[in-house]
Amino acid sequence: MSGQIIGPGSLSLNQWTTRRWSVAEAVDGCVRHDLAAVGLWREKVAEQGLAESVKLVRAAGLRVSSLCRGGFLTAGGLPGEEGRRAYARALEDNRRAIDEAAELEAACLVMVVGGLPGVKPGEPAGDGPGGFSRDLAGARDRVAEAVAELAPYAGERGVKLALEPLHPIYCPDRAVLSTLGQALELSLPHPEEQVGVVVDTFHVWWDPRLFEDISRAGRRIASYQVCDYLHPLPEDVLLGRGMMGDGVIDFGPITRAVMAAGYTGDVEVEIFNAAVWAADPDEVVATMKSRYEDVVLATR
Amino acid sequence: MSGQIIGPGSLSLNQWTTRRWSVAEAVDGCVRHDLAAVGLWREKVAEQGLAESVKLVRAAGLRVSSLCRGGFLTAGGLPGEEGRRAYARALEDNRRAIDEAAELEAACLVMVVGGLPGVKPGEPAGDGPGGFSRDLAGARDRVAEAVAELAPYAGERGVKLALEPLHPIYCPDRAVLSTLGQALELSLPHPEEQVGVVVDTFHVWWDPRLFEDISRAGRRIASYQVCDYLHPLPEDVLLGRGMMGDGVIDFGPITRAVMAAGYTGDVEVEIFNAAVWAADPDEVVATMKSRYEDVVLATR
Repeated sequence: MSGQIIGPGSLSLNQWTTRRWSVAEAVDGCVRHDLAAVGLWREKVAEQGLAESVKLVRAAGLRVSSLCRGGFLTAGGLPGEEGRRAYARALEDNRRAIDEAAELEAACLVMVVGGLPGVKPGEPAGDGPGGFSRDLAGARDRVAEAVAELAPYAGERGVKLALEPLHPIYCPDRAVLSTLGQALELSLPHPEEQVGVVVDTFHVWWDPRLFEDISRAGRRIASYQVCDYLHPLPEDVLLGRGMMGDGVIDFGPITRAVMAAGYTGDVEVEIFNAAVWAADPDEVVATMKSRYEDVVLATR
Repeated sequence: MSGQIIGPGSLSLNQWTTRRWSVAEAVDGCVRHDLAAVGLWREKVAEQGLAESVKLVRAAGLRVSSLCRGGFLTAGGLPGEEGRRAYARALEDNRRAIDEAAELEAACLVMVVGGLPGVKPGEPAGDGPGGFSRDLAGARDRVAEAVAELAPYAGERGVKLALEPLHPIYCPDRAVLSTLGQALELSLPHPEEQVGVVVDTFHVWWDPRLFEDISRAGRRIASYQVCDYLHPLPEDVLLGRGMMGDGVIDFGPITRAVMAAGYTGDVEVEIFNAAVWAADPDEVVATMKSRYEDVVLATR
């Protein structure tokens, strides 16, 4: 690993960073700020309409750096008929997500795989009528099975599933994939063009094996997402993602490692943060552009 | 690994679980509830007096399963004279902690190694006058140096340093040791009787390499601490530790793995939780005893 930057791809606006923007507004914003790529969310695409969204990004000449998101594959770990139905529903929803990613020619479909069966995002464990499962190993096995089920379907449509390890704080309710190494292991049984991994700085910055696993992941890296890790985290830990430079992450070494591993895709900025969402989206994009140069690429 | 339980040691009350109890009260409580061991905190020992604390635990016939805690070794990563002074102060304080552990004949001195230099526990990053450092790799190197400095001193006094990996949520401000595997690597250059590791269920339950690393750690496991991981975490994430059975952790497999690895020491219950601290300590100890049987050993 030379450490030489062989990329980078372009800066991409993940539309959740400017959450109040529709697909049309985000596309306009990217054009106005001279960005070559955008990361889209399924909810927003549904609001705009899939066909209209495709038309908008093509007319603007934008690449779709990712579609967020598929996943939530673990509910099938609940017992009996409830579990079987939940699993079937999840697979069906993921096939629709793959279809949408294909239409949008997205570089990948980001997969947030789901937490312990029955634990709903943000809700107390065990409050649901069906209770919840503490079988973490079982949930992880189920994710592997579901990925094996979905990968060929994705492959036939030219879509790459991008398995996203989430910070361990989200293990109970959002993702039993907790490290890059674990996501990488899960991807290896499948062709590189069908299953890759996401490196999101917020989720992986603390990992003592990060640089080794980035290097090992190589061309399996399907998406590089950046935002900072705020300290202390806000009460809603989902909103602890900050503008690059506002938190504790040293981006330079991570960016260089991702590029040295052979990643040439776009670099998406995805920020969940109440203050960022409340700000003028055009100002957010302007700040994002300057911080990208100063902090993420550390070229100035 | 046979999976057969070759331990377990006795249940031990970490005195922070019954936080309002002094050393004298905790010792009385252990005797009253028929416990054979207690985990002590330096602050509480200082309040009681070291000599008096030694006298109390000996008179009661209690083992001291751990002394909490040494560590906070990373401040030396700040630049210049400030950093050098902070490092020297930290080493000196840790030598005093080792002396105290020796007097108490504690089974180990638990080491919480410290976070990014200049980030204070619970305080916003960068608000201190000296700013803070984002050099995570450097902080980890500094911990390794400090452990190498302290291990022989501990060894001469018959004290074992127990390196505690903390959940990655505490990486910014409390411990740049984030996984059991990383703690184990750090321990390996030193004799087993000088440096071991802590397995605390709250901190490691999510780790995809947990069972492999417990097995690899073997006799390096110096302390097994248990409490549950609550979901969602409270606003002060430090207080997200719950009574076993109240959270998302499946204790049985972890307990069996720790015992199969050869651990024969005591099992400490260490809970930081506002509701537990507000409750009658005798009721807390009674609940702890029944949950230990039902949930941690899963023998009923």
